This record gives sequence, structure tokens and C-alpha cells, in this order.
Amino acid sequence: MSLIEKLRSGDIRTAARLMREIDDEVPGVKEKLKEIYPYTGNAFIVGITGVPGAGKSTLTDKFIKEFLDRGEKVGVVAIDPTSPFSGGAILGDRIRMQEHCDNPDVFIRSLATRGHLGGLSRSTNDIVNVMDAMGKTVIIVETVGVGQDEVEIIDIAHTSIVVVIPGMGDDIQAIKAGIFEIADLFILNKADREGAQKTLRELRMMLDLSRHLYKDKKLPEIVETVALTNQGIKEAVDKIYEHKKYLQDSGLYEEHNKKRREIIFYKLLEDEIRKNISDYFDTEENKRLIEKIREKELNPYEIVDELLKEFHLCNVCV
Amino acid sequence: MSLIEKLRSGDIRTAARLMREIDDEVPGVKEKLKEIYPYTGNAFIVGITGVPGAGKSTLTDKFIKEFLDRGEKVGVVAIDPTSPFSGGAILGDRIRMQEHCDNPDVFIRSLATRGHLGGLSRSTNDIVNVMDAMGKTVIIVETVGVGQDEVEIIDIAHTSIVVVIPGMGDDIQAIKAGIFEIADLFILNKADREGAQKTLRELRMMLDLSRHLYKDKKLPEIVETVALTNQGIKEAVDKIYEHKKYLQDSGLYEEHNKKRREIIFYKLLEDEIRKNISDYFDTEENKRLIEKIREKELNPYEIVDELLKEFHLCNVCV
Repeated sequence: MSLIEKLRSGDIRTAARLMREIDDEVPGVKEKLKEIYPYTGNAFIVGITGVPGAGKSTLTDKFIKEFLDRGEKVGVVAIDPTSPFSGGAILGDRIRMQEHCDNPDVFIRSLATRGHLGGLSRSTNDIVNVMDAMGKTVIIVETVGVGQDEVEIIDIAHTSIVVVIPGMGDDIQAIKAGIFEIADLFILNKADREGAQKTLRELRMMLDLSRHLYKDKKLPEIVETVALTNQGIKEAVDKIYEHKKYLQDSGLYEEHNKKRREIIFYKLLEDEIRKNISDYFDTEENKRLIEKIREKELNPYEIVDELLKEFHLCNVCV
Repeated sequence: MSLIEKLRSGDIRTAARLMREIDDEVPGVKEKLKEIYPYTGNAFIVGITGVPGAGKSTLTDKFIKEFLDRGEKVGVVAIDPTSPFSGGAILGDRIRMQEHCDNPDVFIRSLATRGHLGGLSRSTNDIVNVMDAMGKTVIIVETVGVGQDEVEIIDIAHTSIVVVIPGMGDDIQAIKAGIFEIADLFILNKADREGAQKTLRELRMMLDLSRHLYKDKKLPEIVETVALTNQGIKEAVDKIYEHKKYLQDSGLYEEHNKKRREIIFYKLLEDEIRKNISDYFDTEENKRLIEKIREKELNPYEIVDELLKEFHLCNVCV
């Protein structure tokens, strides 16, 4: 059986191995990704982000169940920030999601971010593509924390959800800065907590003030949930489907798919160039070059010019 | 007068123009950065990060005064997250720092982050280098928010400060994930607030539990401040100098400088390659290629292989 046949037949071990190879950047994995690429582009991708402690994992958990009830096959990519010291991922309450483990229609994968330079989105795209090729119809990409990674989620997800909780106080500023504007849908989770109505009002006010930013885009709706008790989950999933329909009807769905293919291409190209350069500096001669840069005997700006010529990128230079 | 003579003579307008050119990626700015590079490497770089609302701007403000009192010339790079929609930076209370505007020994520059792919650290490095060449002896790099960008601060700063405030609750989890471990020094700001002692205890406990992560490295100290009333500022600056001395005595200071030169080189190389590739795809023929990738008529994984050969990176490939 070919790789793609195995994936489509529901061979979990093949899928898990492929994802591990993507994570470890095993040589040859690119060939496999090339092979499955034609079978991607069918899944509906939902991004979930928000501040730590907003209950994103619980929400994801409930969404899985609800999507399954509606006949979907669900993939989940949960992204954990890596500690630069320990190199480990914080799995925490991810364990809770294990209960879906035995269901062949669910595939959950935790992904540690790699630190520097967009490492996140590259492997996220690859993992999403594997799930897509497996035949998952809905893929949830859940990110922990607030930062650059979260903003990149809009490149991947058709529908981006920002989860907020009551009484965020100063943190509302953090949402404003970058995260706020990527939302296609807001979820006010823990809506039974004190201050929920105040947060709701603030959110509505912020949306109203930002109306001009959305231009032709649909203004995001706000759904109140209490994920722990399943409250509001059906309504939230309804709103997710509504947003999907809006994208499809307006042509934005297909435009998003096109844009994502383009981004995958550019990221892949950059990544491969980076890897090749890294190999290049693995020779004794070039290690000496780096040593001279470290000792300030050479000016990096001059060396870069020379290298661009060596890489025949001068064809491209002005 | 040459560029470097102008910078060193305290020509503020030349410095400001150069930084604007860096921000706007004006052609030819690389030549200027090459020219000033030999005059860099003398400044002591201090990073300040922490959750939004922790009072980082006020702290920076007080630190500027304290460093000036101790005879330093101070540069500040304040990094604001950019909204992906508006493209604008949130300047907010940055205005407060304007009071130092007339002091020739202080130079403050706000920097909007550029979104994707390490754009932050590249221009931050360049701006820091300009201030360094200007003869600033202490350069404070202050970042807003919590995320990848903040982790990258350790590549730039000799001494990284993480600012926390009382009663962070769930957010302590956010500090743990990535940010916690980059601290060379913790500042518990707003230490007159309720819950300060509890947060202090939690912080000490976390540090104690993470002792193994620091290996040979000095365990970070904790200083309590109330930045608004100047409380604890002198002590904090004392601790910053202590950390600098520790780095110098242990050889880590020079090692950091070497590492930073290496990182500047690699980032510059990647950046230039990226720019050249972007120019490459600006031709009609290559725009058609991208269009075919968007329409899924071509497989990006195949195209990337072909391009690597075209760029003569195949010399480098296996």
C-alpha cells in the first residue's frame, strides 16, 4: 500500500510516524509531503487562540465532541510553547483530551514550537496537511499563549477564534494589540464568572470602535460559553459553520486556500534554503569563517555580500 | 563628516534618519550598517520584558534616570507589537518618556514589529548597533507582550529582566512557559499592592523548583519595586550592574558578544536571501508560477527542489 493509501485507510501508526518525522526533520520526509500534497485542501481549518488560562483546551475538547456528533472527522493540532532551556513541551491538561484516543474519527497531535524564525507555522502546515490527507474534515489548530505565533494562525485557519474570559483587566490591552483583530469569532468563556457582562460590554465596545478595520469583512460575533458544563458549545459550533458558509458564499474560502498554498510554498522555500545554508556552514573552512565573525575579525555585512554571489543569488540581485 | 563621525559627534538627526531607513528597509542602508559595524560592541545591553500592564515603561523611565545619574549614556529601543490590520504601533504611555527628549545623553526609539519571520530581531539588532556606534554605554531593549519575541531578547541582551506584578493568578503559567527561564533578574513591580508577598513567595518557589535548569548559571535574584514612586530602583540598577560584573568575571560577557555577532550574521544572510527571492518572484514569468501554485496546478514541494538548483544551492545540497 502506498503512503497515501495507508493514511486514507485510517492507519494511525503511519500517520503518527509521519508526524514524528516532520517534527524531527528526518531526511526524506519532504518526499513524503510532496506525495500527499495532491490529497490536501479538503479540510475546514479552525484556529483557536487566547490568553493562557482561558480554557482553550476544554473548549477544544467540547468542540471535538460536537463536530463528531455532526458527522465530521476531526483532527487537532495543539501547539505548546517550548521552553528554551528544557526543550520540553508543556502538555498539562492536554491529557484530558486523551479520552478521544480510541475514536478512529479523532486524531490529536501536540506540537512543540521550535523557537526561532517561524518554525511553528512550517511544521504546523505540514501536520495539518497530513491530517487533511488522512481525510479529516475539520482540523482544529489550538495555540497556547499570546504572541506572534497566534497572529500566524490566520494564515492557516479558515476561521480564527479568539477566546477571552471575564475580568481580564489590563490584559484587554494585550488582546487589542494584534490578537484582537485576527478574530472571526469571539468566545467569552467562563461566562458564568463575575464580571462576564462587563467584559462582554467592553468587547462589544472595542468591536464597535474597530468597525473600520474590518472593511468588507464580516464583523466577528461573540458567543458566551461555559466550556466545562458544555454551555454555549452548540451555539459556538453553529457560529463556526455560519462563518464557513459566509466564506464560501463570498469566495473568501477559496481565496484563503489559494493564499495558504502560496504561503506554504514560500515558507518551504525559505526553510530549505536555511537548511542548505546550515549544511554549508558545517564544513571546517566555513566554521573558521564563523569563528572570525565571532571574534569580530570579519564584518558580517561584507561576508553576506560575498556569500550571495557564491550562492548565485547575484543573478537575482540588482 | 563621515556617517560614523556624525553619529559619534551626537548628531541626533543623522541617527534618527538612519533608524528610519532601517525601519523602511531603504536600499543602501546595508552599506551604512556595514560602515558602522566596526564601531559597535561596546554597549551593555539590558532587556526588559513581562506581561502587559506590568509597568515596564515606567520602570524603563526610572532606569534611564538612574543610569544617567551613574554617568551612563542611555539608548532605549521600545518594541511595540504591530496590528496586522492597521499596521500601526501602539505607542500609549511611551509619550511619558519624552521628558528625556532634550537630554543629549538619552536616545529613545520606538520600533513597530513587522509581523512574520523574525523581522523583530533583525531590525532590533540594527537599531541597537546604531545606538552602540553613537556611543551609548547602556542600551535598554523593552518589549511589550509575552511571546516569541520576548524569548529572542536573550539573543540581544546581556542581562534580561522579567517584570512581574502581584496577583497574576493564572498568568503565572504564562511566565513559566518560556519567559520565566530567560530572566537574569526578576523585578516584582507594584510591590505595594495587595498580594505582593504571596507572589514573591510563589516566585521564590518556582525558582527553587527550577534550580536544575540553571546549571552553571547564576540563579536570578528578585528585586521589589514601586516604579511610580522610585522605590527599589537604585537597588534594581545595583543588581543589574552586579549581573554585568558576574558575566564579565565568568567570561560569559564576551561569549555573549561573540554569539550575538554570529546571530547577526545568520539573520542578515537569511534576510538578504529572502529579499532576493522576493525580487525574483516579482517578474511576470515567476508570478505565473506562483499563480499555478495558488491554483494547485503545481506541487510546491517539486517547485522548491527545482528552485534550489536554479539558485545553485545544489552545490550545497547533498
